[in-house]
Amino acid sequence: MQLKIPLKNGSSLFINKFMRKRSKKTGLPPGSMVHVGEKKVEQVKLSVIDYDQDKIEKRELKEVEEAFPFKDTPTVTWLNVTGLHDIEILEKIGSRYNIHPLILEDILNTDQRPKVEIADDYIFIVMKMLSYDSEKQEINAEQISLILAENYVITFQEREGDVFNPVRERIENSKGRIRKVGPDYLTYALIDILIDNYFLVLELIGEQIEYLEGNVLENPDHTLVQKIQSMKRELIFLRKSTWPLREVISSLTRDETNLIKEATSPYLRDLHDHTIQVIDTVETFRDMVSGILDIYLSSVSNRMNEVMKVLTIIATIFIPLTFLAGIYGMNFEFMPELKWHWSYPVLLLVMISVFIGMLFYFRRKKWI
Amino acid sequence: MQLKIPLKNGSSLFINKFMRKRSKKTGLPPGSMVHVGEKKVEQVKLSVIDYDQDKIEKRELKEVEEAFPFKDTPTVTWLNVTGLHDIEILEKIGSRYNIHPLILEDILNTDQRPKVEIADDYIFIVMKMLSYDSEKQEINAEQISLILAENYVITFQEREGDVFNPVRERIENSKGRIRKVGPDYLTYALIDILIDNYFLVLELIGEQIEYLEGNVLENPDHTLVQKIQSMKRELIFLRKSTWPLREVISSLTRDETNLIKEATSPYLRDLHDHTIQVIDTVETFRDMVSGILDIYLSSVSNRMNEVMKVLTIIATIFIPLTFLAGIYGMNFEFMPELKWHWSYPVLLLVMISVFIGMLFYFRRKKWI
Amino acid sequence: MQLKIPLKNGSSLFINKFMRKRSKKTGLPPGSMVHVGEKKVEQVKLSVIDYDQDKIEKRELKEVEEAFPFKDTPTVTWLNVTGLHDIEILEKIGSRYNIHPLILEDILNTDQRPKVEIADDYIFIVMKMLSYDSEKQEINAEQISLILAENYVITFQEREGDVFNPVRERIENSKGRIRKVGPDYLTYALIDILIDNYFLVLELIGEQIEYLEGNVLENPDHTLVQKIQSMKRELIFLRKSTWPLREVISSLTRDETNLIKEATSPYLRDLHDHTIQVIDTVETFRDMVSGILDIYLSSVSNRMNEVMKVLTIIATIFIPLTFLAGIYGMNFEFMPELKWHWSYPVLLLVMISVFIGMLFYFRRKKWI
Amino acid sequence: MQLKIPLKNGSSLFINKFMRKRSKKTGLPPGSMVHVGEKKVEQVKLSVIDYDQDKIEKRELKEVEEAFPFKDTPTVTWLNVTGLHDIEILEKIGSRYNIHPLILEDILNTDQRPKVEIADDYIFIVMKMLSYDSEKQEINAEQISLILAENYVITFQEREGDVFNPVRERIENSKGRIRKVGPDYLTYALIDILIDNYFLVLELIGEQIEYLEGNVLENPDHTLVQKIQSMKRELIFLRKSTWPLREVISSLTRDETNLIKEATSPYLRDLHDHTIQVIDTVETFRDMVSGILDIYLSSVSNRMNEVMKVLTIIATIFIPLTFLAGIYGMNFEFMPELKWHWSYPVLLLVMISVFIGMLFYFRRKKWI
Amino acid sequence: MQLKIPLKNGSSLFINKFMRKRSKKTGLPPGSMVHVGEKKVEQVKLSVIDYDQDKIEKRELKEVEEAFPFKDTPTVTWLNVTGLHDIEILEKIGSRYNIHPLILEDILNTDQRPKVEIADDYIFIVMKMLSYDSEKQEINAEQISLILAENYVITFQEREGDVFNPVRERIENSKGRIRKVGPDYLTYALIDILIDNYFLVLELIGEQIEYLEGNVLENPDHTLVQKIQSMKRELIFLRKSTWPLREVISSLTRDETNLIKEATSPYLRDLHDHTIQVIDTVETFRDMVSGILDIYLSSVSNRMNEVMKVLTIIATIFIPLTFLAGIYGMNFEFMPELKWHWSYPVLLLVMISVFIGMLFYFRRKKWI
Repeated sequence: MQLKIPLKNGSSLFINKFMRKRSKKTGLPPGSMVHVGEKKVEQVKLSVIDYDQDKIEKRELKEVEEAFPFKDTPTVTWLNVTGLHDIEILEKIGSRYNIHPLILEDILNTDQRPKVEIADDYIFIVMKMLSYDSEKQEINAEQISLILAENYVITFQEREGDVFNPVRERIENSKGRIRKVGPDYLTYALIDILIDNYFLVLELIGEQIEYLEGNVLENPDHTLVQKIQSMKRELIFLRKSTWPLREVISSLTRDETNLIKEATSPYLRDLHDHTIQVIDTVETFRDMVSGILDIYLSSVSNRMNEVMKVLTIIATIFIPLTFLAGIYGMNFEFMPELKWHWSYPVLLLVMISVFIGMLFYFRRKKWI
Repeated sequence: MQLKIPLKNGSSLFINKFMRKRSKKTGLPPGSMVHVGEKKVEQVKLSVIDYDQDKIEKRELKEVEEAFPFKDTPTVTWLNVTGLHDIEILEKIGSRYNIHPLILEDILNTDQRPKVEIADDYIFIVMKMLSYDSEKQEINAEQISLILAENYVITFQEREGDVFNPVRERIENSKGRIRKVGPDYLTYALIDILIDNYFLVLELIGEQIEYLEGNVLENPDHTLVQKIQSMKRELIFLRKSTWPLREVISSLTRDETNLIKEATSPYLRDLHDHTIQVIDTVETFRDMVSGILDIYLSSVSNRMNEVMKVLTIIATIFIPLTFLAGIYGMNFEFMPELKWHWSYPVLLLVMISVFIGMLFYFRRKKWI
Repeated sequence: MQLKIPLKNGSSLFINKFMRKRSKKTGLPPGSMVHVGEKKVEQVKLSVIDYDQDKIEKRELKEVEEAFPFKDTPTVTWLNVTGLHDIEILEKIGSRYNIHPLILEDILNTDQRPKVEIADDYIFIVMKMLSYDSEKQEINAEQISLILAENYVITFQEREGDVFNPVRERIENSKGRIRKVGPDYLTYALIDILIDNYFLVLELIGEQIEYLEGNVLENPDHTLVQKIQSMKRELIFLRKSTWPLREVISSLTRDETNLIKEATSPYLRDLHDHTIQVIDTVETFRDMVSGILDIYLSSVSNRMNEVMKVLTIIATIFIPLTFLAGIYGMNFEFMPELKWHWSYPVLLLVMISVFIGMLFYFRRKKWI
Repeated sequence: MQLKIPLKNGSSLFINKFMRKRSKKTGLPPGSMVHVGEKKVEQVKLSVIDYDQDKIEKRELKEVEEAFPFKDTPTVTWLNVTGLHDIEILEKIGSRYNIHPLILEDILNTDQRPKVEIADDYIFIVMKMLSYDSEKQEINAEQISLILAENYVITFQEREGDVFNPVRERIENSKGRIRKVGPDYLTYALIDILIDNYFLVLELIGEQIEYLEGNVLENPDHTLVQKIQSMKRELIFLRKSTWPLREVISSLTRDETNLIKEATSPYLRDLHDHTIQVIDTVETFRDMVSGILDIYLSSVSNRMNEVMKVLTIIATIFIPLTFLAGIYGMNFEFMPELKWHWSYPVLLLVMISVFIGMLFYFRRKKWI
Repeated sequence: MQLKIPLKNGSSLFINKFMRKRSKKTGLPPGSMVHVGEKKVEQVKLSVIDYDQDKIEKRELKEVEEAFPFKDTPTVTWLNVTGLHDIEILEKIGSRYNIHPLILEDILNTDQRPKVEIADDYIFIVMKMLSYDSEKQEINAEQISLILAENYVITFQEREGDVFNPVRERIENSKGRIRKVGPDYLTYALIDILIDNYFLVLELIGEQIEYLEGNVLENPDHTLVQKIQSMKRELIFLRKSTWPLREVISSLTRDETNLIKEATSPYLRDLHDHTIQVIDTVETFRDMVSGILDIYLSSVSNRMNEVMKVLTIIATIFIPLTFLAGIYGMNFEFMPELKWHWSYPVLLLVMISVFIGMLFYFRRKKWI
């Protein structure tokens, strides 16, 4: 019995969320640059922002080489790469910035769990950018990789988006501490904005849970179980994306390179708190969704009970009455009752008494 | 299928208990002072108590600046701020007492999990003040932040309340050790009173559980499942509020600043024990509530069984009898029994025997 | 909907087992001496045993002061206090033996979880004395506090009882090592006897579990679920009382004061093993009780199945037959079968065949 | 309601497996020599094997004193004691070999969990010897105690058996390393053979699980639940007996006495691996047994479904038809249909159509 | 009741997956060379590859002795042994390469959990090679043992296969780093390819889970429970095979021998990440499979509900109507209605109203 699995497009997605096809990589030497994941933008886009406390320069790049001169300036340089399918660009960045091939491979493989890799002269962080699609009721994830070095930060996004815009604006408007401090604070600011996004996702999921809870009481139909299961799946995915983050941020805090300055460490601790809060909330939501399933199941069995009661009441009342009627429907020649004048009304009275007696019985049993 | 979620006001509350809307903060630079939570008092109220072993001064303040001179006195100063929405006041306190912007942000964000933050010259503690609303059957929580420094304590409450009154009275009446010792003991006394409150909440919840348990046996109706679920939810919330407390108090005990004196440490250990007791009780209650759900479910299935038995007994007795009556209701011309004189009474006897036989059968099966 | 909870006396007890009302203590300064718990004896009783290898003195005391002279003798002194409601006596002991007020408070508050508190010159241990009331099927607990110092041991019991008698007898008869060694060994002997009692309780519970298991198979009625739940509750309580003991005894073993001599440490390790065995058995019992619940539930659903089968068999056989009878009970003028002479016996034969056919069908389906 | 528990002999055994009656020991001083457990042999048997690389001496002893001279020889001496009820022998061994009374007590108390006790000049190990009784479907356990010292090993068995025979033979035939190395290797060899036995037990249990799994599909009757529960119980027992072994063997590896030579440590690591494998398999089996319970329950509910479907199909088809027949069985004088010539065949046609229509409906619903 | 277990060949396999019969080994001295497992190839095959950066030599061997001269060359030698049943070859390798007998035993015993053993001059690693048989829907496992020493690597496979071919090709084509670096990198490359295979297995299992999920919604029949259980079993097996890998690879990273060079350690960290990802995915799949079981169960109970509703609707409508018909089928002489001209049509109207009323009632109850 070989299974030819004719998957519908839609349903095929949920496993993809948990693992990308790596088959094409099997057997390749480690460090092989293969993009694992969908191609989400047409054209790789490169932009660079170079700033210190006094001046700022912002530029869209045509060639990645244009970014290279910034490497050795003392100012903070933030190079952002959108789109991962152009492997050549990555290789250039890799050789210019001296990045280990395995890390380049990790950037390309969008199936990473959040992790931090601390090399001698740079720190590599990989995380998920999450957003919630209320319509499809699923979480979309994009992989964000980040390299923090002495005086530059390189970020890799899978797809264009404005998630980092608030940071860009803060840099341009020189709001807050951001212009005064180094690339470690920039890194913090970028991670912080990602985690802030998690709270948005959680809020939306929270609303869905409320909605499920409301529905389970008002009209508990069968599709609810599927919705509950798919909600559970999203929460499992969310947990997978956030649980390792705690360790990631702890590592940054404990970090022994000098890339993260002492002054940034309260900010990292704050991030750590936020991460724990996200994890806590995910766990709470999981408990709640389980609770909704319990309510659903008990509500279904309650309905079953209702149905059974109706059947029992009707059957229990009318089956004996029908029997009585059946008795006097018999055709025996010698049934004296049939001749009596008051038989019929008396029998009707008896039947009505049985009827009422049954009703009383059921009322006492609290069935009606 | 986009979900427009028309939430009723009431049901919307339960998710809010687990997370406050942070959306308005997304993208703001860290340390941005935004009050996350409801505005619970009209007017921010400030009061200060300044005491040492010999003298005491108590004052309601109009302006926060009135509190500042106390900062450098050797006496213990307790500044209490009720109401968090006036950000200007917090900023003044922050700059006067030299508090890190992230901590000010935490004070304003009433969605914190309990934590302790140990800075160089002060300790920041955030906890929940709990109270149980028996009518709505839910736990109300208020965030209490506390800053302990060399010779002052600052507390932030969301709402007016008399929870700290017993401490105030002890200070005024100079009862107990409180006037003789420093702000660390005052901090302990304040936390202690919060945890004492948890026991009150637990007592009330314990009563509710007793009530649920009583009900599940006497009249197990369907709404019970919801009550059980909402009780579970309150216990999850309680756990979320107390579980991190253990770590908080352990940190205080292990603290390496000199802000907490050696003599206070048995008191902290005592607090630690109380916290563990609270957590233990929460876990026990969770087990019990699950047990009640089990009883409910088995009691529902028991009732179902009862219903089925009644149906089966009635149907099983009368369906064959009706069949017998049906036989002699047939209109065949040649049915010799119809003519016999004793047919009718004999048939009645047969029916009665079947009836009684069935009853015996059911009795032997222990169905009646 | 405010819940006025009209608790029956009996059922009210189970929550009390897990927490005593502390409400009367809320807001009091720490170290306030309030007896939390029931008053279990009329009169506080004091007894003292003073012994060394050579001589022994045993005395019932009228006043607590009579015990004080023993404090400074080099002999081992064991002061036993039965009944906790007389706070004055405790205060005297506290000041004479120099005990921290928080510890006195813990002695009075009979809602402690087992713990050890190691002070500079004494060790404070609090445990539960358990006994099983087979009639009510519940565990009774009494709090035992113990203070071990250089050359005396003070024990506090809630209620009179002979639990410590075997130790007293061993001292009097100078059996075993007990007279030759110090108060640490006496402490060990007292704890040992408490833990031996736990085994007794476990044996009785084990018998109850056997009984439940036997019953669930022979006559599984609905009250069983409650019994299982209350058994679970007792086991939760037992776990709460024993789990922390492991930590308590480990602390004694690791203890760095000189109060516990090297020679006593194999005895403590032995205690530790016993404690783990108790905990293990409690966990095993919990698993077993869950197993009994599973058997019960499956046995209930099995009975339901039986009921349904009887109904189905009867209905499925007689409903079609009744229909056939109904056909020939119709009053159409032109029903040729009615006139035929053999119609009736032929129909009866048909009915009997249907009947027998159905029986075969059900037999093949293994329903009968 | 006091429970007099009239336990059948058989069922009484299962709790005994998890705890032996210790009641007779309560209150006795520690180190009291009381045999807890059944007396499994009539006569205590003593045998000694004394060997080094060159010579070997094997002897059955009448008196325990005959073994004592071997104590101080440089050769390896293995004294095996079968039967624990003769306390005098143990006392003699205890005083000759200088064994702590608590350890003697542990040897006698056959209710020990596996543990290791490291004294200054000997190591005490206690384990379970397991065997599986396929007929009764239960695990039999026997306690094996072992004392390893500088140049001798003493083993204590509850009952005669040939479990150690392979080791004896290896010694006699001087196969393998055993004659060349010291008592630590002998100890290893003995433990190894016990753990090998666990694999045998696991194989037999594995077969039982296969059998249960096969049965649950072919004829799932009600007794299966009990079998599953008792299988679960055996697995709990197995876990209780093996889980602590890991710690036991780790302790031996980490041991700081010189009793265990460096060269033996790969063998101990190997033992450790085997133990983990046993534990792993027990856990896997537990998962599988739970899975079988799930299949059973779903299979029961499936059968219920079948029964209900038959009832519903029959009732739904014939109840309306009977109603139709009932209509024309009424005795109204003015029912024109009764007079028509084709009424009867037309009605029969209608009934057949209803019948066939219903069948189609049920087929479309996939009920038949 | 002795169980003769007539296992079908197929079903017997699943326990074998979790443990191989070790019975034949019981009682043998440790280090005894017995092949535990199936004989999977006819002929043991030996091949050797010897290379350094400049030259490469590849040879199939007739005798194992041909490989021995390579041992002392400075080049990297990879000796691959396919087939484990020829114990003599292993013994020769063991004595030539100085491998501990216990390790040789482990190589032969194909029931090992993944582990690493670090000796003085070599490292022994044992792992599982997994492949998924989509047809039988089960995971096939083969044990791969690997010995890494100063300048050679020996691998042992149970069965011929091309799993290591990509590595061979990389060596021959001198692609990547592999020719430039030592045997530690070769080891890494071999382990890496095994773990890449795990991802393939996971992809196939993921597809099966999708398929199950699709099926559970479209046609939830009873066999699904078995498929779900066997899927669970495969996942348990997968977990057993991967969980210890984490520890294995960590040990390699922490390794203190000089066999693993500093430069290889990022590669090992990468492996570690992959392993965690595999474990994570296995856990996620387990959650998902449980979710599918929940959907199945709720879908079954939903169908039951449907069946009951149909029965109840039909019975509740027609039983009272039949009763009415029965009334007027009675043969009393004095039933005035029978004489009335409009009785029959009026009664029909009443019946139709009851019918319609019932329909409305059920519609309001949302049953139809």
